[in-house]
Amino acid sequence: MDIEKVNSMDFGEFVDVFGNVIERCPLIAAAVWSQRPFSDLEDLKKHFFAFIDALPQSGQEGILRCHPDLAGSELRRGTLTAESQREQSAAGLTSLGADERLRLAELNAQYRARFGFPFVLAARFSDRAAVSRELARRLLCPSAQELRTALGEVKKIGSLRLADLLRADPAKL
Amino acid sequence: MDIEKVNSMDFGEFVDVFGNVIERCPLIAAAVWSQRPFSDLEDLKKHFFAFIDALPQSGQEGILRCHPDLAGSELRRGTLTAESQREQSAAGLTSLGADERLRLAELNAQYRARFGFPFVLAARFSDRAAVSRELARRLLCPSAQELRTALGEVKKIGSLRLADLLRADPAKL
Repeated sequence: MDIEKVNSMDFGEFVDVFGNVIERCPLIAAAVWSQRPFSDLEDLKKHFFAFIDALPQSGQEGILRCHPDLAGSELRRGTLTAESQREQSAAGLTSLGADERLRLAELNAQYRARFGFPFVLAARFSDRAAVSRELARRLLCPSAQELRTALGEVKKIGSLRLADLLRADPAKL
Repeated sequence: MDIEKVNSMDFGEFVDVFGNVIERCPLIAAAVWSQRPFSDLEDLKKHFFAFIDALPQSGQEGILRCHPDLAGSELRRGTLTAESQREQSAAGLTSLGADERLRLAELNAQYRARFGFPFVLAARFSDRAAVSRELARRLLCPSAQELRTALGEVKKIGSLRLADLLRADPAKL
């Protein structure tokens, strides 16, 4: 898909295509549509990120709370979004042994209790061993720093999803 | 459900229960959770509305763009949220004749083209004749006024949905 195609979309099409760039926050794609036309992928990305950065802290925490746990109950129940399912699968989280799953569940619960939002990580850059390690490490970080780190991961995930969507037809880039 | 029950919810439960108070914007419920504890229904409502009012205009338009058309393609395809389905049904929009449906589809399309968001109305306060009349009337309003009117309807819808949820067990109110 090229940027002219993106710029020609009405808001219904735009939200259908970009609604999950930020996990379960179609509101953000729907807001970004107001900023069209976009000059390229970087410009589109910039508008998604600017919207996130301009939210009050409660809104930024809200974005994080719309994310599923890694290797959590939604993966087991099959209710993940298609994008999350692919990303968790790429990190090997769909084939954990019982012990590893339990260990991650305990760490996820501690993290949620400590920070008031779930542990978010761009899983595609990771693997199963690194996920636990990183979760254990970030559990010890100060809250303000951890909010920044987690939003950075939201942006990495969004960048990868946007790049996937715009590169769907590589001949056009 | 009483307010103590609401205040005892972790963010996962809260988003499950209140995630569609603002249509398809679980981000807003997830942000509002940061403001707990709530003193009563009015207080909870106040935090939902304050979040909407604090958004930049693009975000407010984004909320509107997450709403379905009244008597539109989502009603036909059966992909409305449960709340929207009930509300459109209460206004008689599920049993329109072909002529009425066509007339509404034309007005909806004109409205979307003019304002860049769909026509939003608290359908539970309305009926099929009033919906067309109101749509035809609002189509002629200035843009800035229409954005305010539409957000007022979002708040009416949200108020009714919150009241439904908190009155689910009337013995507890």
